[in-house]
Amino acid sequence: MALIVQKYGGTSVGTPARIQRVADRVARERRAGHELVVVVSAMADTTDELLALAERISAEPRRRHPRELDMLLTAGERIAMALLAMAIRDRDVEAISLTGSQAAIITDNVHTGARIEEVRATRVREELKRGRVVIVAGFQGVSREREVTTLGRGGSDTTAVALAAALGAERCDIFTDVDGVYTADPRRVPSARRIPLIDFQEMVELATSGAQVLHPRAVEIGARFHVPIRVLSSFRDDDGGGTLITRKEHGMEHLALTGLASESGHVRLVLRGLPVGMGATAEVLTRLADAGVSVDIVEQADRADGRRQLQITVREDALAEAKQICERLIADLEGERLEVQPGLARIALVGSGMHDRPGVYAQIFRALIAAGIEVHALSASAISIAVLVDAEREQEALRVLHHAFGLGEEQP
Amino acid sequence: MALIVQKYGGTSVGTPARIQRVADRVARERRAGHELVVVVSAMADTTDELLALAERISAEPRRRHPRELDMLLTAGERIAMALLAMAIRDRDVEAISLTGSQAAIITDNVHTGARIEEVRATRVREELKRGRVVIVAGFQGVSREREVTTLGRGGSDTTAVALAAALGAERCDIFTDVDGVYTADPRRVPSARRIPLIDFQEMVELATSGAQVLHPRAVEIGARFHVPIRVLSSFRDDDGGGTLITRKEHGMEHLALTGLASESGHVRLVLRGLPVGMGATAEVLTRLADAGVSVDIVEQADRADGRRQLQITVREDALAEAKQICERLIADLEGERLEVQPGLARIALVGSGMHDRPGVYAQIFRALIAAGIEVHALSASAISIAVLVDAEREQEALRVLHHAFGLGEEQP
Repeated sequence: MALIVQKYGGTSVGTPARIQRVADRVARERRAGHELVVVVSAMADTTDELLALAERISAEPRRRHPRELDMLLTAGERIAMALLAMAIRDRDVEAISLTGSQAAIITDNVHTGARIEEVRATRVREELKRGRVVIVAGFQGVSREREVTTLGRGGSDTTAVALAAALGAERCDIFTDVDGVYTADPRRVPSARRIPLIDFQEMVELATSGAQVLHPRAVEIGARFHVPIRVLSSFRDDDGGGTLITRKEHGMEHLALTGLASESGHVRLVLRGLPVGMGATAEVLTRLADAGVSVDIVEQADRADGRRQLQITVREDALAEAKQICERLIADLEGERLEVQPGLARIALVGSGMHDRPGVYAQIFRALIAAGIEVHALSASAISIAVLVDAEREQEALRVLHHAFGLGEEQP
Repeated sequence: MALIVQKYGGTSVGTPARIQRVADRVARERRAGHELVVVVSAMADTTDELLALAERISAEPRRRHPRELDMLLTAGERIAMALLAMAIRDRDVEAISLTGSQAAIITDNVHTGARIEEVRATRVREELKRGRVVIVAGFQGVSREREVTTLGRGGSDTTAVALAAALGAERCDIFTDVDGVYTADPRRVPSARRIPLIDFQEMVELATSGAQVLHPRAVEIGARFHVPIRVLSSFRDDDGGGTLITRKEHGMEHLALTGLASESGHVRLVLRGLPVGMGATAEVLTRLADAGVSVDIVEQADRADGRRQLQITVREDALAEAKQICERLIADLEGERLEVQPGLARIALVGSGMHDRPGVYAQIFRALIAAGIEVHALSASAISIAVLVDAEREQEALRVLHHAFGLGEEQP
């Protein structure tokens, strides 16, 4: 009898009919003898409707009233979890719903973007001991001052994996609207294939590079506490196997590349004519970090005339702030000028075998050049390589690379 | 600087525009120097929408899943109070919303119909000390086992008066969609007048007899803890004075009658041919009470042939159960038969001067007989007299009695 944590997202509980379907699945798993903790998000649209209400009351609720916004939004999971508990109980399976506070998901005090500090889950354990399915509100927690908080993006995934870690669950099953993690987005790359097994770190790379299926925060907790995570479709009765995210034991001949992810909305900033040797790069990166701007790719080049050129990429939503900071810096450091190159897409090639396979860079460049796609910038980590291309070539670049690395082919 | 508890019902916070209006009023009172605790109900329709959702999930949520229904319904006040807090804060008045649990409204464990056992309100006092307007969710509480409960009908009024009692507030202002308590329902009796001042006990009688404006539970708490309650319209900027419910000091010549209330949906059951002297009446009343059926008027008559006739009135919603119990009893006691007389209305004449004014009964009967309205049954308490008439004559009877006792006339 295993303890399993299941998580159902907003679309999976989006209508009463879908809630009934989730209840069927939960009842089936429970009857199979498993102990179950079920984490739910708010029903699809509920959060948007509540936000719209808040915006009819106040101009900038997130900035001006973060505490009250959390109070408001947490009504969403409350509704979904109570309805799911009723549906499960109607199937003669004992169930009880608990808020983030009742489940003792203890967070810091940062409203609308809290981080989990501790999962006490005393009440969850008690209810499991009574033989009940325990339904826990995703996305929400409580601070040590007993204030209601929300976890921000990826919150419900994070709740589920953190609970699985705290309870020592055998596995955390994330039910969503796709049936697993793919070698590339199947809407863009028709030959994309489901990845049956993927390493935690590979998944973190894919998730941070634009794969929407699972939030990297959740995967990181899974990696740290060794909680295997399975991604499955809630719309299929057979789960199709899904994707298991775990610590991968590599064979002798494992594949270099596991999958691709991409994201448009990147911008390159070129700072021309900075002084060399005065810590200009460090100064730029420090000021941006202080302002909360994440920088992705950093490249620098020293010119023959003894000035330095610095190229950084940021996301579009941080552009205004980044631009202001860079312009001020160029003035302070007596640099030449700032150039902005918008409309870029970042494509990440992820695979834990990447770094010990020579020629991967060459293979990437050859494939893209043959298709006439220019690579504007490039970066690499131990298990991934990212290239920046024009956003209008994003889909084509994905297909070219997917094909070049044989990701669409039958695996041995 | 007085401490005042204000309560706003569902229609008063029914739309974002109305919430803004309530925020205006709260900000004005706060700037006038008062300490404020504001109790809110769910926005109009929210509770009905949540109930409809529950009924799409499960056939009888109230009976089968009371705990989860409470979890669901408490989302309603959460939404309203967070929005109101934002609106007040936008007016540069410090405000914070607290759930029933955070405000420590401690109840028993009876889901969907809990009773308040204690109001700790520690957090409420702390927030008041910080100069904040404290918004508290009405209708909800928390049991000693930390389960979320709801108070059932009249719940938000009850929360407000109980908080006022616990905090030693100077007054509890109930804002609603009418501007006070009237001598009769003004939709039915056009000459009805607002009652500026009414005694707690009179108000309890009016409220239990069908006056919708305020729930008797709330008035009873006001009476017990001497919290004056004011009923006001939230739709008028001048409050029009409203109705103050308090302990009334009677003058020498106070009016016999304060007001009328009525309610249709009453049924009379006639149990014919019961044995005399075998405790038949006690047996009937005991069995009905055990089944949770409230009996209103009880009349018994011994016939010349030595059998007894018992007449009781109950509400229509308890009729099926009452009928079954009475039929079984007639069989057990070898009585003759049961007759059911449906379609009755109960009209209550309330006034604390009633019992020491002779001739009130005669005045009632004279007025109704002159209008050709039959009185089917009658009962009296120290401060009220109730008569049962045919439901289709309810409105006419109200007008006749209102006129007969001069309630529409200018008072000295």
